Amino acid sequence: MKAIDLIRKWMEDAGLRTWVDQMGNVHGRVDGANENAEALLIGSHMDTVVDAGMFDGSLGIVSAISAVKAMHVNGKLQKLKRPVEVIAFSDEEGVRFQTTFLGSGAIAGILPGTTLEISDKREVMIKDFLKENSMDITEESLLKLKYDPKSIWGYVEVHIEQGPVLEQVGFPLGVVKGIAGQTRLKVTVRGSQGHAGTVPMSMRQDPMAAAAEQIVVLESLCKHPEEYLSYDGHCSDSTVKSLSSSLVCTVGEISTWPSASNVIPGQVTYTVDIRAIDDLGREAVIYDLSKQIYQICDKRSVSCIIEHKHDAGAVICDSDLSSQLKSAAYSALKKMEGDIQDEVPTLMSGAGHDAMAISHLTKVGMLFVRCRGGISHSPQEHVLDNDVWAAGLATLSFLENLS
Amino acid sequence: MKAIDLIRKWMEDAGLRTWVDQMGNVHGRVDGANENAEALLIGSHMDTVVDAGMFDGSLGIVSAISAVKAMHVNGKLQKLKRPVEVIAFSDEEGVRFQTTFLGSGAIAGILPGTTLEISDKREVMIKDFLKENSMDITEESLLKLKYDPKSIWGYVEVHIEQGPVLEQVGFPLGVVKGIAGQTRLKVTVRGSQGHAGTVPMSMRQDPMAAAAEQIVVLESLCKHPEEYLSYDGHCSDSTVKSLSSSLVCTVGEISTWPSASNVIPGQVTYTVDIRAIDDLGREAVIYDLSKQIYQICDKRSVSCIIEHKHDAGAVICDSDLSSQLKSAAYSALKKMEGDIQDEVPTLMSGAGHDAMAISHLTKVGMLFVRCRGGISHSPQEHVLDNDVWAAGLATLSFLENLS
Repeated sequence: MKAIDLIRKWMEDAGLRTWVDQMGNVHGRVDGANENAEALLIGSHMDTVVDAGMFDGSLGIVSAISAVKAMHVNGKLQKLKRPVEVIAFSDEEGVRFQTTFLGSGAIAGILPGTTLEISDKREVMIKDFLKENSMDITEESLLKLKYDPKSIWGYVEVHIEQGPVLEQVGFPLGVVKGIAGQTRLKVTVRGSQGHAGTVPMSMRQDPMAAAAEQIVVLESLCKHPEEYLSYDGHCSDSTVKSLSSSLVCTVGEISTWPSASNVIPGQVTYTVDIRAIDDLGREAVIYDLSKQIYQICDKRSVSCIIEHKHDAGAVICDSDLSSQLKSAAYSALKKMEGDIQDEVPTLMSGAGHDAMAISHLTKVGMLFVRCRGGISHSPQEHVLDNDVWAAGLATLSFLENLS
Repeated sequence: MKAIDLIRKWMEDAGLRTWVDQMGNVHGRVDGANENAEALLIGSHMDTVVDAGMFDGSLGIVSAISAVKAMHVNGKLQKLKRPVEVIAFSDEEGVRFQTTFLGSGAIAGILPGTTLEISDKREVMIKDFLKENSMDITEESLLKLKYDPKSIWGYVEVHIEQGPVLEQVGFPLGVVKGIAGQTRLKVTVRGSQGHAGTVPMSMRQDPMAAAAEQIVVLESLCKHPEEYLSYDGHCSDSTVKSLSSSLVCTVGEISTWPSASNVIPGQVTYTVDIRAIDDLGREAVIYDLSKQIYQICDKRSVSCIIEHKHDAGAVICDSDLSSQLKSAAYSALKKMEGDIQDEVPTLMSGAGHDAMAISHLTKVGMLFVRCRGGISHSPQEHVLDNDVWAAGLATLSFLENLS
């Protein structure tokens, strides 16, 4: 609620007409020269997670408001060719209610009415929490928050990269070509539990050894998909090429049962997180990986269960918006540094963003800002001052050249 | 306390003179024809762990008492060539006080006086618990429980195998050649924590992938030590041969930190349990394994720490006692089945037994009894009636032929 008040004040100070909707999103709008033209939406989220640093989400809101304010000060705001609406989305992370995109999802119209009845750990429902804070929402009014796609031109979001790519290529800004699709698997391997001292190696059905072999295969496959998939017939050359540059696979959790140092586990469970910008490619990887997991289990006479816990398709950013963002980034950096040798890099987003939800409503474009140390969730301020400045200037250049 | 009373009654019924010492061990002794000769000790432990079944420990006590009773009934007890003392050890498992061999350790004289001050989870000390049960022990009286090695001839223990070897070879009884030495390692791999979506595969320092590769190497090394160690120069041919038949390695526990499916772990920790009958061989395996673990960490730019949490040397069973046990087992099986085709098998014990403690006092020999399903800790009765019978008959034959 404090952030809502603060951001609303900043928006008004930047010459925007503001309101807060019933999901807690803050809106600041200027109609420009053509109030009936399709509007540009621009923004990011207000919330964050513990230790994510001060730039997660907020940088996209602040750079949009700053750019609008610069135009306001220079008297350019009313000359905008189309309405511009800055939105600070209320809840992107889903920390409290374990459901992401509560703010942007409402505007995109992708939240089912039952969302309002989701509870936090203390059994407080979303709708009751909102009501307590003077946002009296019902299933009916939630559906009315959805924007009419015909009234919207596109959505643009500036966000910190939360990864190491821009730092490695040495560039402050990058254009996002798309947000990776994601599959989350839970693999359960069941073998034969036994005493660590009494079962000879040749008589074991050890699920831990099987899981280790599978994780080694998973890493190889995801590091070099071209070696595994190119001759498979399932994947086109372009898919394989896309996988080579975007596929990432992670085993983040693993546990044994009964988990004692002197017991051969009876069961091992681990998670697999697979992301890629090419949905067909991701499916091919999962197909191939599953085949290999089952083969390893067969070979070792243990059993495997692979559960699909989550699947989300990739979002491809609009090519026109992307080239406009590229030009804007280039012009901002040129203004700051004089001469720019290299092209503004293009990269994939492996993490989810509000743009994913808004892609159900309109075309989207994203600009990434370099992080220091490539660390996503670090308590330090992890964006250089100059890069924050570049983000604001690029946003300004984008708005000034809005057609 | 109930078990003590019951066993003591059985012992007296078998013609033994009984007493309970201050550590709760139950003794039943017959002097035979030469009361000043060195005594044979024979027995096992009264305690067990949850779900270990009704034969763990108790089978060794019951078969000894039964054999003695048969001799008592047949009037052979007083003709024994040397004193025989059946002992039911009080606490072998260490469940309550987390310290093993409390009973046999006292008799072997390997418990430090401070053992009596070890507490259980409710802060009750061993000495206070014993005092409450009318066993008033002090550091001084603990030391006096130690038997004089000169008065003892040897120790024999019958125990369930708690492993699958005898079941696989299809033999009810087996002679134990020794109890494996054991090393327990804790391996910590530290890498670079990151977002599962934003760090490209080529830029990762993923401790989970490193740990998986290490566990695969560990399994190969322990399955085929001859391929890894034979040309190393550290190991003699006999050591390598011994490892090939006895080495077992287990990863029983593993965990990641921070343990979230969408986070590349910053740290992975796992345990390694290594057992072998050849101490030098076990050391060579640990040396080689550590080298390979460090190499994998170097290659992947992650860091490794290998901690030695526990080391215990192997115990080799006495060859004379072993051949007497072998003859006794053979004669028992011949009595039951008529003709025996195969030799009584010899096998290693991967688990610890009271014989480990008593080996500090005198020579030891052990006889293993086949388990059904090869399962060590199962709630079912997991020894066939016939095999229980064979264990008792073999013990009887051993005692009858005592020289």
